[in-house]
Amino acid sequence: MSAAPPNILRCAYAELVVTDLAAARWFYRDLLGLVVTEETGDAIYLRAFEEYLHHSLVLRLGPVPACAKLAYRVTAPEELDRAERYFGELGVRVLRVPAGATLGIGEAVRIEDPLGFPVEFFHHATHVERFTQRYDRHGAAAISRLDHFNVVVPDVPAGQRYYQDLGFRLSENIVDADGTVYAAWMFRKPTVHDIALTGGDGPRLHHIAFASQERGQILHLCDHLGAVRRSDQIERGPGRHGVSNAFYLYLRDPDGHRVEIYTHDYYTGDPDNPVISWDVHDNQRRDWWGNPVVPSWYAEASPVLNLDGQLRPINTRTEPREADVTIGADGFSYTRPAEADGAAARGFKVGNQV
Amino acid sequence: MSAAPPNILRCAYAELVVTDLAAARWFYRDLLGLVVTEETGDAIYLRAFEEYLHHSLVLRLGPVPACAKLAYRVTAPEELDRAERYFGELGVRVLRVPAGATLGIGEAVRIEDPLGFPVEFFHHATHVERFTQRYDRHGAAAISRLDHFNVVVPDVPAGQRYYQDLGFRLSENIVDADGTVYAAWMFRKPTVHDIALTGGDGPRLHHIAFASQERGQILHLCDHLGAVRRSDQIERGPGRHGVSNAFYLYLRDPDGHRVEIYTHDYYTGDPDNPVISWDVHDNQRRDWWGNPVVPSWYAEASPVLNLDGQLRPINTRTEPREADVTIGADGFSYTRPAEADGAAARGFKVGNQV
Amino acid sequence: MSAAPPNILRCAYAELVVTDLAAARWFYRDLLGLVVTEETGDAIYLRAFEEYLHHSLVLRLGPVPACAKLAYRVTAPEELDRAERYFGELGVRVLRVPAGATLGIGEAVRIEDPLGFPVEFFHHATHVERFTQRYDRHGAAAISRLDHFNVVVPDVPAGQRYYQDLGFRLSENIVDADGTVYAAWMFRKPTVHDIALTGGDGPRLHHIAFASQERGQILHLCDHLGAVRRSDQIERGPGRHGVSNAFYLYLRDPDGHRVEIYTHDYYTGDPDNPVISWDVHDNQRRDWWGNPVVPSWYAEASPVLNLDGQLRPINTRTEPREADVTIGADGFSYTRPAEADGAAARGFKVGNQV
Amino acid sequence: MSAAPPNILRCAYAELVVTDLAAARWFYRDLLGLVVTEETGDAIYLRAFEEYLHHSLVLRLGPVPACAKLAYRVTAPEELDRAERYFGELGVRVLRVPAGATLGIGEAVRIEDPLGFPVEFFHHATHVERFTQRYDRHGAAAISRLDHFNVVVPDVPAGQRYYQDLGFRLSENIVDADGTVYAAWMFRKPTVHDIALTGGDGPRLHHIAFASQERGQILHLCDHLGAVRRSDQIERGPGRHGVSNAFYLYLRDPDGHRVEIYTHDYYTGDPDNPVISWDVHDNQRRDWWGNPVVPSWYAEASPVLNLDGQLRPINTRTEPREADVTIGADGFSYTRPAEADGAAARGFKVGNQV
Repeated sequence: MSAAPPNILRCAYAELVVTDLAAARWFYRDLLGLVVTEETGDAIYLRAFEEYLHHSLVLRLGPVPACAKLAYRVTAPEELDRAERYFGELGVRVLRVPAGATLGIGEAVRIEDPLGFPVEFFHHATHVERFTQRYDRHGAAAISRLDHFNVVVPDVPAGQRYYQDLGFRLSENIVDADGTVYAAWMFRKPTVHDIALTGGDGPRLHHIAFASQERGQILHLCDHLGAVRRSDQIERGPGRHGVSNAFYLYLRDPDGHRVEIYTHDYYTGDPDNPVISWDVHDNQRRDWWGNPVVPSWYAEASPVLNLDGQLRPINTRTEPREADVTIGADGFSYTRPAEADGAAARGFKVGNQV
Repeated sequence: MSAAPPNILRCAYAELVVTDLAAARWFYRDLLGLVVTEETGDAIYLRAFEEYLHHSLVLRLGPVPACAKLAYRVTAPEELDRAERYFGELGVRVLRVPAGATLGIGEAVRIEDPLGFPVEFFHHATHVERFTQRYDRHGAAAISRLDHFNVVVPDVPAGQRYYQDLGFRLSENIVDADGTVYAAWMFRKPTVHDIALTGGDGPRLHHIAFASQERGQILHLCDHLGAVRRSDQIERGPGRHGVSNAFYLYLRDPDGHRVEIYTHDYYTGDPDNPVISWDVHDNQRRDWWGNPVVPSWYAEASPVLNLDGQLRPINTRTEPREADVTIGADGFSYTRPAEADGAAARGFKVGNQV
Repeated sequence: MSAAPPNILRCAYAELVVTDLAAARWFYRDLLGLVVTEETGDAIYLRAFEEYLHHSLVLRLGPVPACAKLAYRVTAPEELDRAERYFGELGVRVLRVPAGATLGIGEAVRIEDPLGFPVEFFHHATHVERFTQRYDRHGAAAISRLDHFNVVVPDVPAGQRYYQDLGFRLSENIVDADGTVYAAWMFRKPTVHDIALTGGDGPRLHHIAFASQERGQILHLCDHLGAVRRSDQIERGPGRHGVSNAFYLYLRDPDGHRVEIYTHDYYTGDPDNPVISWDVHDNQRRDWWGNPVVPSWYAEASPVLNLDGQLRPINTRTEPREADVTIGADGFSYTRPAEADGAAARGFKVGNQV
Repeated sequence: MSAAPPNILRCAYAELVVTDLAAARWFYRDLLGLVVTEETGDAIYLRAFEEYLHHSLVLRLGPVPACAKLAYRVTAPEELDRAERYFGELGVRVLRVPAGATLGIGEAVRIEDPLGFPVEFFHHATHVERFTQRYDRHGAAAISRLDHFNVVVPDVPAGQRYYQDLGFRLSENIVDADGTVYAAWMFRKPTVHDIALTGGDGPRLHHIAFASQERGQILHLCDHLGAVRRSDQIERGPGRHGVSNAFYLYLRDPDGHRVEIYTHDYYTGDPDNPVISWDVHDNQRRDWWGNPVVPSWYAEASPVLNLDGQLRPINTRTEPREADVTIGADGFSYTRPAEADGAAARGFKVGNQV
């Protein structure tokens, strides 16, 4: 490669295909409290309270739930030229689209990235009112800003190399003693991640995540879902992650797209920020309190579209799977490292059996 | 019955037999932050921050983990005479013990109640400093006061009649359409309960519960247990109860005794306080967020001693068991009542399978 | 007195005269989040989320802001007869009104109490839905229930005797070394108070208070008022009281009526609940953090009506006033008791000077 | 200037001269909960829970309370050469000191900056354990990391130009219609600030600030100070800033150094982050809830040392002072902009008069 990668600021917006705009509007606007910037016949553009760009989420009506786009903001307009050259040299499909190709977004470069995802790079976007102090509009579940994307890829090290070449740094990962990498967290803005790579059949979108200021806002979401008898949209949590230290909650939107609400991670902006590696058998890696990860969280994810709007085929992970090597059958986990090698290692909590 | 029952104020203290005082001290003092009022060679007497009686918990060294006593405070000294007459007439074993029989507690009446539990009634107790505003002593997990006892009995309606005769009122219960009662919550002080009756093999102590002021204190307990690699002592939660509306966490102490930390229930002191009946198939009754109840929470509990310190035999519940009629096998639950009668009813979340 | 007083449960509702129903509706419904049970041409009936009686607040349109009624609930219908006899014997004005005299309230006894306040006793009230778990309706400032009334009277010990005769108990007070009583907190339900007596020119209503579950709900109210540029309706706080230990906030409604939001007080239900006496010179008595009490909080309060709807004349306090003996001029306060007798005692914080 | 400025990461540590190490240790370690990394005979080196460099605060014993150093971390070792050249060309005093000149810190460049402050630039520092998840060590007041410095300078625009040349960007400021700048907030890491410039007599250090994760941690500090009868160390707050939106508290350490605890500001990392200008007469600019700024907060600050350890002389601000133009005397403020021009503008809250 002779071309330099574009200078990326941060993850900036996701575009999800939903099959029922009214149901999606209820979930994202009425439940999560996102602000609707604009709505057209077939799409809703939303942002969180601290955001001043046109949107951080697009919900677009379509026949099959899927991820249509993951977008990163670059530091300056001229980075689009660098992106075009870089990805051209990389040999992936590259499209340059004019301002307005996505409502509210300036000129952009779209690619099908080597991992199989539809990714957009842009700099300009329409500015809208930042609702940081519009507390009269904040509900009890007020969400601040988009925090990260999490994608499922069969080969995590390959994904990690791709993103490192793009200038992302590693903050944490999950590995085993044989060198298998199960997941990796990578960032541009100085948080734990802009993108997480989760090992599994892919390309699929595992989830998008929004940040809140405090845990109370996350707990209220659960209470609200209970009140409207939609508690089955709570997939996992609330809990405290081992990885990232974030307090988290995973919801499933009406189309099954997974959304995380996330707070309390940490500053990673110094160049020597220590990388934290978690043993895949450490039962506190995914939940610091040792609460079990539900099977659907490992198994399910949203398919992705190519730049023509067609579903991408999904490739099977050939390396060991985290769900298989941890809880149940041949898998094992431990709460205390010293007990990692025996029956005592199985002292973790067991969920409900059906 | 011609005798009137004693006038009971509230649940006041529990005495638990533990097999390792050092381990118990760590759990109750260092983790939960209870204040040690006094310690003797074979026992530790503790209270929570807002309490001014000598103790709300006694940990006594013994060979087998068990519940040695559940104590209620009566409104005046003369209520002990009423207690003696009432339980004498009831035909259960009654002992009148002098002040100091339990350190810090005045004269008392001890009984083996008809449900099989060792219960004490007292009025006088040594006053000690109330640490309500000793914030220099409050840790991040500060606990306010003992809130309630929860006991396992085979026959919940029989237990409910016994406690109603003693002047307790019902706040909530879990029932099914056939009239089976799975659990009942009853109170003297105007909270949701001083005593809960849980259907199962008994007599056994299901748990004791302490109140905190806010949810943050409960969440910190989980974080602390993760930090010391004891997350497997978190048995269930944190979560929001359907019954009682309380935010909850269930821990297991080093001997396996279950302790709940509990906040956000509601005032029940008006005489027409509405009783709330929950359908046993309602998947939000035990967790408003629909998170599964772990099997051990249904199955395990502490044995109880008689007044001679011997383990009481355990009787089997003959009516249907909540765990059996809800999740798995022939059991079912629903999140939305309208879907209660079909396959859709099984839309609840499923825990991890082993 | 040969008649026994009525058996009172708790403070139950207040009726305030407001001059602009739309402005009051905004404040109590849109800002505080109270639920409107019913609205007529000249009145709004509201309740908080955990309440199931028809209302805990009536806002009635009138020409002058005033307190038209403070109502207590009695334990049973027959207590109304006792009330009628008791207050008759006491020689104050007594009216028995039929069910519906106040919308949603059953038969009632109204009096002009010896302290000069229009007080009602009732038992029956229309039951309405308890919104405890209607989290879809709870805003970020969700309020649970009415907690207490606070009234200004010239002679606090006289007021205290009147309420003690009615069966209220003292929880805390503010006194000086000369025996002057500046304020007293008294209760029927087992919290710090149902009624507080504040020394000053009266009869006047100092404030009514609602309880929230956590501090976050109180902080959000302040943020919301800032957002709508009504921060000048925040009169005092948020802060932590010395007396009661409650976390508090005082707002002024559009008519100047003072409303407190209050959480974290403690259980007082045991008969030997320790009374806490605070020295009037203790700078942490009114704010545990030592933040100054604003002058308006001492000086201003709502006038009250008699049973004919006419304003009651206001009597002047003849004993020393708390504002005069503490901050400024001849008054002094101390943060550390050991420094109470010298210049060092004046080490408290000083607010802004104009 | 031909030299490029060094590439600065963020504010990194402060060194304060204290007159009583034991008193300072109590304040910073026992009250604030900072972790002591190392202690020598005349100094204590502390860090917050998420920090992994040797320290973010040095307390050094000395005869007069003062600020001895404000340190910034640069992105790489070679930036020290750039710093040396840049400040050399700027004509200020520059010292290059070897690793260990400050315990735990690598080679460094120290300057007397044009604003009169002793400033250090370094890259290398000893790595120590990050206590992010050591919740067993976190008290109720757990603090995450150093957030910013705030300095008092007579000429804010001059200070702003100096920092802009160094690569800092402006996030917010306080101005008036005549163009007077009263304060400016500037950042390198993507938060509201690494450095704030407050107009006044300088050079002086106004405060250093640490971040917490939630508001509850800040409120606990106040409760703790009340419990140990040191509430007079709470100077201002807690409250919500208008500028930065942060929830804040200002404490004074035993030597009078001001420390802020701060949470809930927002991401500023995008190049078009909107600058927010506040009118100096807006009564919500410094406290979103309109609570008055205490006079000491405007008037008092710590003197600074030069590189020889001698006190710097203090220059007087010649432009209007914020305290003078806002509350009292000829100053005015408004809560609602529409009322800015008349008597109604004075509708803000007034603190206690002495």
